[in-house]
Amino acid sequence: MRLSIVKGEGLKEAVARLEGRAGTAQEDARQRVLEILTEVREKGDEALLAYTERFDGAKLENLQVSEKEIAEAYAIVGEKAAAILERSAANIRAFHEQQKQASFMNFGEEVKLGQIVRPLASAGIYVPGGRAAYPSSVLMNAIPASVAGVERIVMVTPPGKDGRVTPMTLVAARVAGVKEIYKVGGAQAVAALAYGTKTLPAVDKIVGPGNLYVALAKREVFGQVGIDMIAGPSEILVVADASANPVYVAADLLSQAEHDPLAAAILLTDDEKLAQRILLEVERQTAAAPRREIIERSLEDYGILGVTDSLEAAVDQANAIAPEHLELAVADPFALLGRVRNAGSIFLGHYAPEPLGDYFAGPNHVLPTNGTARFSSPLGVYDFVKRSSVIHYTKEALQKVGQDIMDFAGLEGLFAHGQAVSVRMKEDER
Amino acid sequence: MRLSIVKGEGLKEAVARLEGRAGTAQEDARQRVLEILTEVREKGDEALLAYTERFDGAKLENLQVSEKEIAEAYAIVGEKAAAILERSAANIRAFHEQQKQASFMNFGEEVKLGQIVRPLASAGIYVPGGRAAYPSSVLMNAIPASVAGVERIVMVTPPGKDGRVTPMTLVAARVAGVKEIYKVGGAQAVAALAYGTKTLPAVDKIVGPGNLYVALAKREVFGQVGIDMIAGPSEILVVADASANPVYVAADLLSQAEHDPLAAAILLTDDEKLAQRILLEVERQTAAAPRREIIERSLEDYGILGVTDSLEAAVDQANAIAPEHLELAVADPFALLGRVRNAGSIFLGHYAPEPLGDYFAGPNHVLPTNGTARFSSPLGVYDFVKRSSVIHYTKEALQKVGQDIMDFAGLEGLFAHGQAVSVRMKEDER
Repeated sequence: MRLSIVKGEGLKEAVARLEGRAGTAQEDARQRVLEILTEVREKGDEALLAYTERFDGAKLENLQVSEKEIAEAYAIVGEKAAAILERSAANIRAFHEQQKQASFMNFGEEVKLGQIVRPLASAGIYVPGGRAAYPSSVLMNAIPASVAGVERIVMVTPPGKDGRVTPMTLVAARVAGVKEIYKVGGAQAVAALAYGTKTLPAVDKIVGPGNLYVALAKREVFGQVGIDMIAGPSEILVVADASANPVYVAADLLSQAEHDPLAAAILLTDDEKLAQRILLEVERQTAAAPRREIIERSLEDYGILGVTDSLEAAVDQANAIAPEHLELAVADPFALLGRVRNAGSIFLGHYAPEPLGDYFAGPNHVLPTNGTARFSSPLGVYDFVKRSSVIHYTKEALQKVGQDIMDFAGLEGLFAHGQAVSVRMKEDER
Repeated sequence: MRLSIVKGEGLKEAVARLEGRAGTAQEDARQRVLEILTEVREKGDEALLAYTERFDGAKLENLQVSEKEIAEAYAIVGEKAAAILERSAANIRAFHEQQKQASFMNFGEEVKLGQIVRPLASAGIYVPGGRAAYPSSVLMNAIPASVAGVERIVMVTPPGKDGRVTPMTLVAARVAGVKEIYKVGGAQAVAALAYGTKTLPAVDKIVGPGNLYVALAKREVFGQVGIDMIAGPSEILVVADASANPVYVAADLLSQAEHDPLAAAILLTDDEKLAQRILLEVERQTAAAPRREIIERSLEDYGILGVTDSLEAAVDQANAIAPEHLELAVADPFALLGRVRNAGSIFLGHYAPEPLGDYFAGPNHVLPTNGTARFSSPLGVYDFVKRSSVIHYTKEALQKVGQDIMDFAGLEGLFAHGQAVSVRMKEDER
């Protein structure tokens, strides 16, 4: 494995390589997506069934998953697994309850101004099929919508050749409170959620991870419906000091690297000896890892073991990278927290490994990837509400400021804007 | 003018026509935009200066607006106009202060979870040039960023042939607290804000209205930077009862119609007599309106005077349209407010005309258009902050839930995820 310890210029070059992960626009794929969107818009369910047979090899009678299928899924999954999902869901729900925002209103005598916060009426959650079907993602996408108060939460996911959905996915959906589930995936599922069909009415917003076609389709329907961020390659960045345990840090780096060859596992420390011990541990643990091949490709291409002049310099470098996951594996993580500017989720201390956040603690694991933590946030309740402003003036209040408004309209040459006020400055003409 | 009173099926058809405003994808324009983005990414300032000469006819030495130019703008604009902008800005600032969100943290003995809310480090505001240069838009886009605490607020706007920026735009920018202003517009300005050049460092998020090329460019750079919603054709919807003044309502309808031939002015009332009087007033006021031609085209194509069976039915129809601006010109607007589901900004009563919100009251006038109020919100402080989750567990806390996390990782076949926890279940190995 080519993973080695870098500092100074070497570290700069390694960080620069990370940008190569983003990937380039796929014009040909985009053209196919545009065709699929048009086809579904025009032919509805007929197109959904045709694409599902063509892409998923499943010939379906009904797109919607039945109660019977969900009961069967529970039987297959078993009580123990369902109970684990329930315990995780309880933590996720409890944390997201704290993200709820209240409406506000200023009740002045003459002027009343406010902001109403309301849940979206409906939301659609995309869930990948097959081996990429992660029940934790179902919980993390659906529960914030449920906590926000979204009445209609829809899930779409591609069926297997046997026309069935991964049982664990169905159980997770039920645990998360999803009522409607449809066996359709890819760009055709996004099209159905955006435009609606006879059996699958359109939703107001589409969230959830998917492959290139799903991502491109979401980008195209943005505006017709709302979408969440487009997920890119993910990363973990561990800032560690001499107090860190190399065995722990190495395990945490591998837990990200095993996701995907494009995933980036990054260590930044002011202690070169620690970096050396972590390198040995990474090699030892990788050799024993079931997903060894993925881990080795990820570490070779994007793994970084960087040594900085100080712990503060390590955090500053982390801010520039804006990692999806940031671990502060240091003696006093709360002291260092104030220096962190850009990160999706921040794990403090030696006993908060990334998987704690992926599965159980409660904060969302759908996080801004690939540097987008500079401007975006973890998925949350705030993604499933919308706001309306409220303005009420009395006649007296309007007449006090009417001249300013008319003058302002004049500055912009919008005469009818001024007229809407001037007619109200006179006595009522009826 | 073909504007007439409709009900029942006629109303349904008129509402359906509104969707025609959205427009179709412009593939050729998109290709030109992609070329511009690449050119600016590769050649930086050189490309910006070349495009500004080509598209704006201005041969510039420096892209950045100087303090001298801003002083000259103040002299041209005059104290009175500047004072009006200041009074408007004070109201906008006061309202947006109420949108600030606090970070939270649960300080449990063994488990600490929180969410940190931080301003973006930088934001770029696009301001159209020439006749579409609206100082109110500068205030409405820049002040929420300033209230959020964004340190670096950048404005870009195309210069005139004389290489100068509309004076009112410069004064509005200064009033709103914008420090950096650059003379560049179109897709090339969006490219510079997204990728950065020698004189114009990249920003974290781009907001503000623009033409087709600006909108397409923002869509393309989305992901590299954050963007606000893509603005579509705008609309006003007035729900009126017998207490409404036809002169006022007609003036309000015209104030939207004068914006743009694609703008939609819609009346919904349960009182047919009122609708008839409003129709007469619309015709009378249109005849006298300076922007008569735009108003007539807008009303002919998308104007609606609809009569419904009840006031409640009018609000339900409004919810389906999800208008950018909703006026409740009724005797008891607060009673009706609870039925409203989808609207960008809601104006209550007979003395809250849309221009009050456009210029002065304080809530933002950058609103979700063309039905997107179903899932999006007015521009606000929340658009200029990002959140980070915080997770801290003690060793004891992790070991209590470790088995669940390892089991969950097992369910997903992510072995290294489980390993990151299992190594922490044993005694420290160092």
